[in-house]
Amino acid sequence: MASNKVESTAVYNRSGEKLGEVYNFMVGKRSGQVAYAVMSFGGFLGIGQKYHPLPWNMLTYDTSKKGYVVDVDKEQLMGAPSYGAGEEPFSQPDYGKHVRDYWASRGSRSAVIG
Amino acid sequence: MASNKVESTAVYNRSGEKLGEVYNFMVGKRSGQVAYAVMSFGGFLGIGQKYHPLPWNMLTYDTSKKGYVVDVDKEQLMGAPSYGAGEEPFSQPDYGKHVRDYWASRGSRSAVIG
Repeated sequence: MASNKVESTAVYNRSGEKLGEVYNFMVGKRSGQVAYAVMSFGGFLGIGQKYHPLPWNMLTYDTSKKGYVVDVDKEQLMGAPSYGAGEEPFSQPDYGKHVRDYWASRGSRSAVIG
Repeated sequence: MASNKVESTAVYNRSGEKLGEVYNFMVGKRSGQVAYAVMSFGGFLGIGQKYHPLPWNMLTYDTSKKGYVVDVDKEQLMGAPSYGAGEEPFSQPDYGKHVRDYWASRGSRSAVIG
């Protein structure tokens, strides 16, 4: 899939609601491995244009929807790491870990509660 | 590195000449692994806007140049798989193999001749 098509691919939750789309994604300069997908969820959350990075392995591609599905809810997104236009938090060395830690803890809770 | 920044990153040859830039890149929808970088070399080759896909492992990121370096010459590029604007050859199942085979054979020859 071409990188510039990934960038506008729709993102749905498990109930099939469209949450937003992929804004861009973070890729290892040398490894070529995608580490984070950055979601644009502005309209959905009603809090202005915000970008939410998610670890790439949280995304499942659904061929029939032609989009990605993520198992997250609004509450989880409200508290998640996010940034505004013009900010480049990934230039800080620990930002990736911050994102992974947030979603790792949410992932476990969600697995326990159901 | 953000995907939309990779997309305009400069590409140099081993002599330090700028060949062009990354137009986009092909990423596995599920794996998140970048398989091909698609180069835009139009001006350099003087043959109009053409896109040349290269296996990702042919690219080396050079921090001082803030760009990628590839060990290819003009003759190799002239004979390489390429396509024009609006074409989507990667939708054909064998196109990736075609690209890999071309560059694998050129890689060996270049290693033997020097």
